[in-house]
Amino acid sequence: MNILVLHGPNLNLLGLREPHIYGKETLDDINAALAAIARDHNVELRILQSNHEGALIDALHDARTWADGVLINPGAFTHYSYALRDALAATDKPTIEVHLSNVHKREEFRHTSVLAPVCTGQVLGLGWRSYTLGLTGLIQLLEQNKPHAE
Amino acid sequence: MNILVLHGPNLNLLGLREPHIYGKETLDDINAALAAIARDHNVELRILQSNHEGALIDALHDARTWADGVLINPGAFTHYSYALRDALAATDKPTIEVHLSNVHKREEFRHTSVLAPVCTGQVLGLGWRSYTLGLTGLIQLLEQNKPHAE
Amino acid sequence: MNILVLHGPNLNLLGLREPHIYGKETLDDINAALAAIARDHNVELRILQSNHEGALIDALHDARTWADGVLINPGAFTHYSYALRDALAATDKPTIEVHLSNVHKREEFRHTSVLAPVCTGQVLGLGWRSYTLGLTGLIQLLEQNKPHAE
Amino acid sequence: MNILVLHGPNLNLLGLREPHIYGKETLDDINAALAAIARDHNVELRILQSNHEGALIDALHDARTWADGVLINPGAFTHYSYALRDALAATDKPTIEVHLSNVHKREEFRHTSVLAPVCTGQVLGLGWRSYTLGLTGLIQLLEQNKPHAE
Amino acid sequence: MNILVLHGPNLNLLGLREPHIYGKETLDDINAALAAIARDHNVELRILQSNHEGALIDALHDARTWADGVLINPGAFTHYSYALRDALAATDKPTIEVHLSNVHKREEFRHTSVLAPVCTGQVLGLGWRSYTLGLTGLIQLLEQNKPHAE
Amino acid sequence: MNILVLHGPNLNLLGLREPHIYGKETLDDINAALAAIARDHNVELRILQSNHEGALIDALHDARTWADGVLINPGAFTHYSYALRDALAATDKPTIEVHLSNVHKREEFRHTSVLAPVCTGQVLGLGWRSYTLGLTGLIQLLEQNKPHAE
Amino acid sequence: MNILVLHGPNLNLLGLREPHIYGKETLDDINAALAAIARDHNVELRILQSNHEGALIDALHDARTWADGVLINPGAFTHYSYALRDALAATDKPTIEVHLSNVHKREEFRHTSVLAPVCTGQVLGLGWRSYTLGLTGLIQLLEQNKPHAE
Amino acid sequence: MNILVLHGPNLNLLGLREPHIYGKETLDDINAALAAIARDHNVELRILQSNHEGALIDALHDARTWADGVLINPGAFTHYSYALRDALAATDKPTIEVHLSNVHKREEFRHTSVLAPVCTGQVLGLGWRSYTLGLTGLIQLLEQNKPHAE
Amino acid sequence: MNILVLHGPNLNLLGLREPHIYGKETLDDINAALAAIARDHNVELRILQSNHEGALIDALHDARTWADGVLINPGAFTHYSYALRDALAATDKPTIEVHLSNVHKREEFRHTSVLAPVCTGQVLGLGWRSYTLGLTGLIQLLEQNKPHAE
Amino acid sequence: MNILVLHGPNLNLLGLREPHIYGKETLDDINAALAAIARDHNVELRILQSNHEGALIDALHDARTWADGVLINPGAFTHYSYALRDALAATDKPTIEVHLSNVHKREEFRHTSVLAPVCTGQVLGLGWRSYTLGLTGLIQLLEQNKPHAE
Amino acid sequence: MNILVLHGPNLNLLGLREPHIYGKETLDDINAALAAIARDHNVELRILQSNHEGALIDALHDARTWADGVLINPGAFTHYSYALRDALAATDKPTIEVHLSNVHKREEFRHTSVLAPVCTGQVLGLGWRSYTLGLTGLIQLLEQNKPHAE
Amino acid sequence: MNILVLHGPNLNLLGLREPHIYGKETLDDINAALAAIARDHNVELRILQSNHEGALIDALHDARTWADGVLINPGAFTHYSYALRDALAATDKPTIEVHLSNVHKREEFRHTSVLAPVCTGQVLGLGWRSYTLGLTGLIQLLEQNKPHAE
Repeated sequence: MNILVLHGPNLNLLGLREPHIYGKETLDDINAALAAIARDHNVELRILQSNHEGALIDALHDARTWADGVLINPGAFTHYSYALRDALAATDKPTIEVHLSNVHKREEFRHTSVLAPVCTGQVLGLGWRSYTLGLTGLIQLLEQNKPHAE
Repeated sequence: MNILVLHGPNLNLLGLREPHIYGKETLDDINAALAAIARDHNVELRILQSNHEGALIDALHDARTWADGVLINPGAFTHYSYALRDALAATDKPTIEVHLSNVHKREEFRHTSVLAPVCTGQVLGLGWRSYTLGLTGLIQLLEQNKPHAE
Repeated sequence: MNILVLHGPNLNLLGLREPHIYGKETLDDINAALAAIARDHNVELRILQSNHEGALIDALHDARTWADGVLINPGAFTHYSYALRDALAATDKPTIEVHLSNVHKREEFRHTSVLAPVCTGQVLGLGWRSYTLGLTGLIQLLEQNKPHAE
Repeated sequence: MNILVLHGPNLNLLGLREPHIYGKETLDDINAALAAIARDHNVELRILQSNHEGALIDALHDARTWADGVLINPGAFTHYSYALRDALAATDKPTIEVHLSNVHKREEFRHTSVLAPVCTGQVLGLGWRSYTLGLTGLIQLLEQNKPHAE
Repeated sequence: MNILVLHGPNLNLLGLREPHIYGKETLDDINAALAAIARDHNVELRILQSNHEGALIDALHDARTWADGVLINPGAFTHYSYALRDALAATDKPTIEVHLSNVHKREEFRHTSVLAPVCTGQVLGLGWRSYTLGLTGLIQLLEQNKPHAE
Repeated sequence: MNILVLHGPNLNLLGLREPHIYGKETLDDINAALAAIARDHNVELRILQSNHEGALIDALHDARTWADGVLINPGAFTHYSYALRDALAATDKPTIEVHLSNVHKREEFRHTSVLAPVCTGQVLGLGWRSYTLGLTGLIQLLEQNKPHAE
Repeated sequence: MNILVLHGPNLNLLGLREPHIYGKETLDDINAALAAIARDHNVELRILQSNHEGALIDALHDARTWADGVLINPGAFTHYSYALRDALAATDKPTIEVHLSNVHKREEFRHTSVLAPVCTGQVLGLGWRSYTLGLTGLIQLLEQNKPHAE
Repeated sequence: MNILVLHGPNLNLLGLREPHIYGKETLDDINAALAAIARDHNVELRILQSNHEGALIDALHDARTWADGVLINPGAFTHYSYALRDALAATDKPTIEVHLSNVHKREEFRHTSVLAPVCTGQVLGLGWRSYTLGLTGLIQLLEQNKPHAE
Repeated sequence: MNILVLHGPNLNLLGLREPHIYGKETLDDINAALAAIARDHNVELRILQSNHEGALIDALHDARTWADGVLINPGAFTHYSYALRDALAATDKPTIEVHLSNVHKREEFRHTSVLAPVCTGQVLGLGWRSYTLGLTGLIQLLEQNKPHAE
Repeated sequence: MNILVLHGPNLNLLGLREPHIYGKETLDDINAALAAIARDHNVELRILQSNHEGALIDALHDARTWADGVLINPGAFTHYSYALRDALAATDKPTIEVHLSNVHKREEFRHTSVLAPVCTGQVLGLGWRSYTLGLTGLIQLLEQNKPHAE
Repeated sequence: MNILVLHGPNLNLLGLREPHIYGKETLDDINAALAAIARDHNVELRILQSNHEGALIDALHDARTWADGVLINPGAFTHYSYALRDALAATDKPTIEVHLSNVHKREEFRHTSVLAPVCTGQVLGLGWRSYTLGLTGLIQLLEQNKPHAE
Repeated sequence: MNILVLHGPNLNLLGLREPHIYGKETLDDINAALAAIARDHNVELRILQSNHEGALIDALHDARTWADGVLINPGAFTHYSYALRDALAATDKPTIEVHLSNVHKREEFRHTSVLAPVCTGQVLGLGWRSYTLGLTGLIQLLEQNKPHAE
């Protein structure tokens, strides 16, 4: 199973920028945690961070041929990038949108995601755990497993 | 560790009602899956489903003295129950709001949650997995663990 | 044929409250008129009035197993109870929404029904006749009869 | 007792146009069903269909001298014809507005009726039965009868 | 003279919940202060707190036969309960709406009261004194006394 | 203790203008009632009525050095005078805004107070009693007394 | 000098319809008063009343070749007829829009005139005098006279 | 018969300021034209121009005892001065609002008059003639004359 | 192949009215250009211009039995005629909406087309070429040809 | 004659992505069809597709010195790229905006083009023909030819 | 060169009022800094602070004959004083609007300046430097100097 | 002291593009004027112009380690780039936003800056002087100097 992980604009500063909002973990910390989960499930991850909308779109187009699902933290593109939305719709893979902070507690403009209607689901407000839970859920979706009450 | 699980109005019909939206699992299936996770982490769950707003508020008040966190699927109360919002704020525990479906793909009125600003985070659109991931994330938050890249 | 008749909040005061708006007939008068129509068509009615949103939802859930249709005057729940809306959608029976007064002549907030999109039809503004015409129409729908010009 | 029945624009196509929305009955079928009801109650009907707003207004003015009530399906004029609204207000007869489909389930612009505030009541969403129930209710209003529980 | 005092949802937590907003006095403290004023004016109080909208409506209906006025802190129902509004209008007694905090300094949704148009007056932002001043004013209104400049 | 009492535009006509809304008491009657309360509590009042926005602002500026609190009926300035709002914020004293009528029952534009967010509280809809209760509450606030159930 | 006088929909009912709003004078009375003014100034009037939007548009097109100005009471077309607006703009003559009643005191939808931006001026709220003053002003404009203080 | 004529802010600059909008006539020219009309009808005029909102309000209060009607060009106060509106309502005389330019052709904010709902009528867009026609109409209203077709 | 060409209100004035917006070509010039294209493709055109909404609707109804497609410039009906929209939907033929000018550069109200959602496509802003390109495109659609790169 | 052809984000996927909306033709097919038209008219085309907003802006700046016109399908940049709008305005060449689908039939956000007000015209909803008709129209505009009815 | 400096309502309190927002400098400090700049450039300043809208308007009218430019901090008049706006437009001098704080970081109503569209430019958010930079810029504009890269 | 100067999209065309709006100076002229000021204050400038949003974000990230302040003309990104906003917030340096033209006099969409709330201040409408005054103010802020009245 192959999964594309996309980090949008300004996420390269994680751990450095406004830690009271985004937490103390760096992007490397988060990527390492994701890699550990992937290893446990025999999943191959390809990870890209970019501040350029076009670069994220190009990566999604490329993923059409190799990826089974997408995990994306679109950063501020969440709120206006209809081009990214179209790219997600065109890629047409199960996609989980994650946010570190609870965007609904913040400025009005962060309450709207133009991407959410073309994603499968959202995990938000749990800090770095939004990523790890989002990846876990995406893998479970792709494995189409059932709830178990062992 | 003690956690209150609240299911709002109409969720007693899960598995019976509009399965193309809400999935085939019943509320019992979901509760069993939550119980399994709780058992693994030595967490005690108390679970309530009610179609009565006042009953959910009463349960939250009661939880002030015994619960460490709350997992809630508020159903349609999500969109207008400011009384439930005040009850959550007064209870003041880490709270994860979950939804089975991706509410952002559905009717306009489902895009707004009046509860989200007083919750810690949201998991939505992953079917029954929204619940299990939500509970897992809540336990992790309460354990205050770090990301690990073992 | 079995039909559930629901009267929402404050309708127990009919005939006593603001008769220039709601008319002089009491709820008993209206229920008797409905019963007469039902008897003529061999229809069994079960009737409930409640000021509690949750009680109306419970009644709708219960009706899933025995009722063929629903006649509902939701009172002020018309304007905000998305939980009642979900219950109607989950019950998924032909449903007629009735109002005694012409809500479009009254305060702005009464012009919107959050329930109308999940009902089959509406009869309003005809006083107690909104109920009797609504029940007659519902029975005709369930009998799937044709227009006749005998 | 004399009643004017008005059918607005495009209703001449009934039965031919979008039958999944408007049903299979033609305007002649509906007029015949109305005539049968009228005959039973000794009511004289005058019926007009027109695609011309001015023609409907002229008919309403004319009805001031002979009609006791009006039954109107205004078609799309429902949503913007303030001239028709003024004509209804000037005619000042008990008036029932009917719609074949449940307009609240359809496009946003169909949710608003600029005529409703000057009508007595509305019947909608019951197909051809909206007309027959509307006429029945109008006759009962004009006869000022009471609810009976014989 | 008889007065109904209603406390809406979450007010049972007064003194415990967010004291920087709602003050340190408990509901018992406030009820005792109200009782003292009532005793001074030979007024009988009946007091109810409930988190259930339907219970508040039932109490208002019941008060139609014995109460001369109503003092109500509707809590969060202030902002959306049109059913409570209809119950107040049907009860039709002089009614004073009180709020502990200045709702106009808080979240946007707290700026609107759907109840205010059917109340006689409002007292807000004075903490527990909103209640005592509200009761004093209500008694004065019922006594129809004049301003005095003794 | 010193308190500034401000009456905004058109309040000099009280008792003469639209008595069905504002009551029969004149401004002198109200000022006398306020003076009586002040005398009972050893409070000095300075009272000003003006139709000039600038004059009210000047009085507030002046009060910065001598007053402990402000009682204000801003009249129609309530709805748009951001200049008065800034003056209140700059004065920075406990302030009670009063209105004779229930502004929420009147024209739409009267529902919004641009001053409320910089006041401590509001009393409205109780006629001349809005003033006397407002002054009583302000004095109690300044005395920081507790609720008593003697 | 030649002037076109247009009366829009429902104005044929003047004197008969809602006289408390529109006055007791008939359209013939108003036309006679206009004719008297025209005679005094050697102005030829051509007068048309129609309930048909297209007929008013045709009359305006026709007037392009013979009229010097237009006096129009557009009735309810005032509020939505962009086609009439385009016709007025295409005719491009000095135009005075008149209304019998003060439209700003009536329903919200009557506050907006889509024609006003393409007219020269408005006279409203003066009953039949709106017409006579409008015609007088239009003639003065066409004569390009100066203010005189004889 | 006595009439108060009020000119609002910036009208002292008439003839000097933006003549392509307001025309070349000065305020003196207009006052002279008004005086000529008044003399012909035995009407006494009192005229005031002020840039001070308070001064206009004072003049209206004063006119309560001597004037029969009011002619007012409120300038930019038209669009926001609720204080002036209250003063007009309190004065309660037949009032004609005039504007030199067609405000509906200009900036958006000029399309709304907060004064119109408390005036009797409006004349606008006819330059200085808006004043003379407005005064003529006001005198006719006060004389309660009929249309004549001599 | 048969095509109906409809010209809406005021288009009879083309070439005469505001040529800086609509160009110098008359409706006859445009019809001749359309006829030339039709001749080249063996297409029969029927052309109607009307200022009457009802006449355009009647023509569309009539076209149900003989036309293969519709080319329409709805003029100002574009912005409000839901009756025309319903007629287009009922006719249910490939339809191209054309406008001479770029409506998006003009007044706000011209930016919305209530017809566009029921048309196949739009051509606008190219003057008379909007018509000829619209007709060419419609014929190509009906011939269902492929792109060719000969 | 030289023309710049710009394809915005995601259009590289044409023929692969959502063919029920965008058709089966690839971007190469469309470019070949455009080249054929260009060859017939001796027009030189330069064609660019990019998912990067900045790259499209750079191309427009470059075209200032060599191009006579622009044909652009801005993809999702249509709805928010004010930077692209400014680049089009700065380039200041006749520009035709094209869309494959009828954007007015799709999601609300696709109904608004922030570019349309700085373009010459639009062709939309005709699939690949939107491009070929758009190019044909642009060439005709640049040749300033007349309608001909040969 | 002569420049009018206007300080609007409440600015007489600078240094005393909310220093965390407006800084510690008094109005005298700021006026002295402005005077120093003026002296360096041989500019004469006339400075006025007033809480009376009319006084500011009078000063602007007066400045028509002697001033070359205007520097204005309109205080709260910024947000609604259309009268001041008209006065600025009538004065018609290069005008710089300054604000001490960054109004876009504060309450919603402070984000809109009704004066900005009739000013030449704005300087805001730089504390007392907004004034000195604004004056420097205004002088440079009036001197019509070029950028220099000495 | 080190300052980053950013020029957003289309600013490379300064002096060439719409000079009636943006002036005749080129970007080189402006950069030279900024360099002269920097030299006078011993400030090092690093200057970047880009039409690529991502490139501007990258430059801001880079500046975190070396710059003391930022001067930015964001061009059209002003109105929608929340990614740029987040980058400015993350960089967290005193920042001055400048615009050549007075954006409040232009199209509606230019009145909103999504960046202003995270900047220190704004200078706009003064042409190239917006830049030089903005830089001067920024240097003064960084030097934390006082107003001086030498």
